[in-house]
Amino acid sequence: MDRPASRAGVDAAAFRSAMRQLAGGISAITVGQDDDRTGLTVTSVSSLSADPPSLVFCINRSSSSWPVLVRRRTFAVNVLSPAQIGVAERFSGRGGAKGAARYEGVRWSRLVTGTPVLRDALAVLDCEVEELVERFGSAVVIGRVVAAEVRVEAAEPEALAYWRGTYGILRL
Amino acid sequence: MDRPASRAGVDAAAFRSAMRQLAGGISAITVGQDDDRTGLTVTSVSSLSADPPSLVFCINRSSSSWPVLVRRRTFAVNVLSPAQIGVAERFSGRGGAKGAARYEGVRWSRLVTGTPVLRDALAVLDCEVEELVERFGSAVVIGRVVAAEVRVEAAEPEALAYWRGTYGILRL
Repeated sequence: MDRPASRAGVDAAAFRSAMRQLAGGISAITVGQDDDRTGLTVTSVSSLSADPPSLVFCINRSSSSWPVLVRRRTFAVNVLSPAQIGVAERFSGRGGAKGAARYEGVRWSRLVTGTPVLRDALAVLDCEVEELVERFGSAVVIGRVVAAEVRVEAAEPEALAYWRGTYGILRL
Repeated sequence: MDRPASRAGVDAAAFRSAMRQLAGGISAITVGQDDDRTGLTVTSVSSLSADPPSLVFCINRSSSSWPVLVRRRTFAVNVLSPAQIGVAERFSGRGGAKGAARYEGVRWSRLVTGTPVLRDALAVLDCEVEELVERFGSAVVIGRVVAAEVRVEAAEPEALAYWRGTYGILRL
């Protein structure tokens, strides 16, 4: 069962196949405001520290959201429920929607930074960029959380997740 | 619905409540070898880049695994299935097992670095530490993947996840 690869590294296909086995909760990252807004879908949001409240996510620096994030230095995490697969799809770029068009069809509000947050998300976290750790073609974004709200917890007994390249429903 | 917090930051309780809404796939991180081995359970593993194959996870620097990780500079990610809740529990420190005692009761093997990998995990990724980004009381660990294997994919139609403070089963 053990087939050691070269110490120099593993090939990208084997890496991707292994990573597909790891499930991830889905968040839409919103960036910018008004006409200068866009965003992306990620499974990489994680808590970094509760003191100060901070989180991380990973972004490919070829993403259309990257230059807006660098310029605005604020973003929000919108934790999605199964009812919001459409938001996940639009923010992942499927269907071709770009920029502000990704925001159509659902309701948004604001907390502190002014970045749009999804009204009916499971939870939203409004963040300022603490640091952009640029490595390889990607970046680890470290965000300082300036506001956070749980939204539709009682009404929603399921979470939206991504696993083996497709959406799944998580129940407790 | 919008109750803006102070721009200075959100309180830790509100932050934790919001983060509990985000589901995460569960991995056991193994660190060290032989008697000098320990590990931890995380939901924070994410792909960073496929070129070169690299991933990140977050660790509290008060974790018992932190000094071993700093010394060894290698670790492995073991993606857990629902059959491995016991591993998740032991590696999270529940029940009091420490160090090598966390490895009892299941079968391990090795790939390239010598760090133990779980034989029946969904997938395993053997890594060298590329960089430890120490921020606040935590660290973002950037790992270069030197070997990766999918293990029991065909036999396991469910993933193990963590949501709202408890384990959940993810189905497609």
